[in-house]
Amino acid sequence: MAPQTGVLVPLAAGQVLEVVDPCGEQVSDFYAVMQDDIAECFSAGRTVDYNNTLYPSTGHRLWSNRSSVMATIVADSVGIHDMTVTPCSQQTFDILYPEFDGAPHPSCFANLCGALEPVGVAPDHIGTTLNIFMDVWTSPDGELHIDPPPTQAGDVFAIRAEADLFVGLTACSAEKSNAGVCKPIDYRVR
Amino acid sequence: MAPQTGVLVPLAAGQVLEVVDPCGEQVSDFYAVMQDDIAECFSAGRTVDYNNTLYPSTGHRLWSNRSSVMATIVADSVGIHDMTVTPCSQQTFDILYPEFDGAPHPSCFANLCGALEPVGVAPDHIGTTLNIFMDVWTSPDGELHIDPPPTQAGDVFAIRAEADLFVGLTACSAEKSNAGVCKPIDYRVR
Repeated sequence: MAPQTGVLVPLAAGQVLEVVDPCGEQVSDFYAVMQDDIAECFSAGRTVDYNNTLYPSTGHRLWSNRSSVMATIVADSVGIHDMTVTPCSQQTFDILYPEFDGAPHPSCFANLCGALEPVGVAPDHIGTTLNIFMDVWTSPDGELHIDPPPTQAGDVFAIRAEADLFVGLTACSAEKSNAGVCKPIDYRVR
Repeated sequence: MAPQTGVLVPLAAGQVLEVVDPCGEQVSDFYAVMQDDIAECFSAGRTVDYNNTLYPSTGHRLWSNRSSVMATIVADSVGIHDMTVTPCSQQTFDILYPEFDGAPHPSCFANLCGALEPVGVAPDHIGTTLNIFMDVWTSPDGELHIDPPPTQAGDVFAIRAEADLFVGLTACSAEKSNAGVCKPIDYRVR
């Protein structure tokens, strides 16, 4: 995937999606809905709750808003991923990054909207994503800190679909979350 | 509000909703949608992101899934609230609390569904809540810890609506999040 783009990946139950950072220091946002009923979608909140962690890794499951298992994490060479912040959007740049002066900017939210629109997912139904390789940590007072992704070229994160899914995947568009430069993301389905 | 119940609170822009813990050590889950278009709803992820904190407090704003300001926090005698976990549901008890042996259990999710159904909000559209007075903290490795609410009788959290809202509010039903006993919650609209 070229920098600052998104893609639709249909996954049949049992297939494995591998997400690879080919250059290092690059985030990939992940969202998914059930093929059988697109109103059933990935829930970051239920995934945090049921796994009892902010950093999902190998063996953890991804849960839906109806508390169904959507996928299992089957490989993870990094161990740092985020589920607290929403995909970057035009408003993210407008609100948080005044240096862009409100100019149009590519975003993971727009790219996920474009990727998932052909299967009928409305923008309002794209919630908090699993932000693969994104390093968000908090001070004891709750303040968020976003560090460069702790990845090196070739690092991998993989899930096995436990149901038929439509996945939206991006090469993240926010310079600040990607050590200053937006780079490509590789993926493959096995 | 009686223990383990929920309520619908319509708020006009400019009105203030005060949530009071009358006994101490009790959580209240908050969710909201816009009256003008109920598909526009509270987004915990955007609220975390735009305020740059996991612990929203006085002066912070509550944001929607369309990046609009829904409310401003105008009073907070506690400073500890959660936006990472979803409201407790029947599945929460089934999955996380085997001691209940799958028996029917009141839940914030069911109570929010009941509170918001009369204004047309479907269960699938009730996402991660603002869990007022809930003390969730994480170890550096990301593990979640839920401590008793750090409230004393009379502690207050208040928001001013910045748009016309339908609010769903609960007295939380999960014993483990409430120091072992589910207690009432008071609220008033000014």
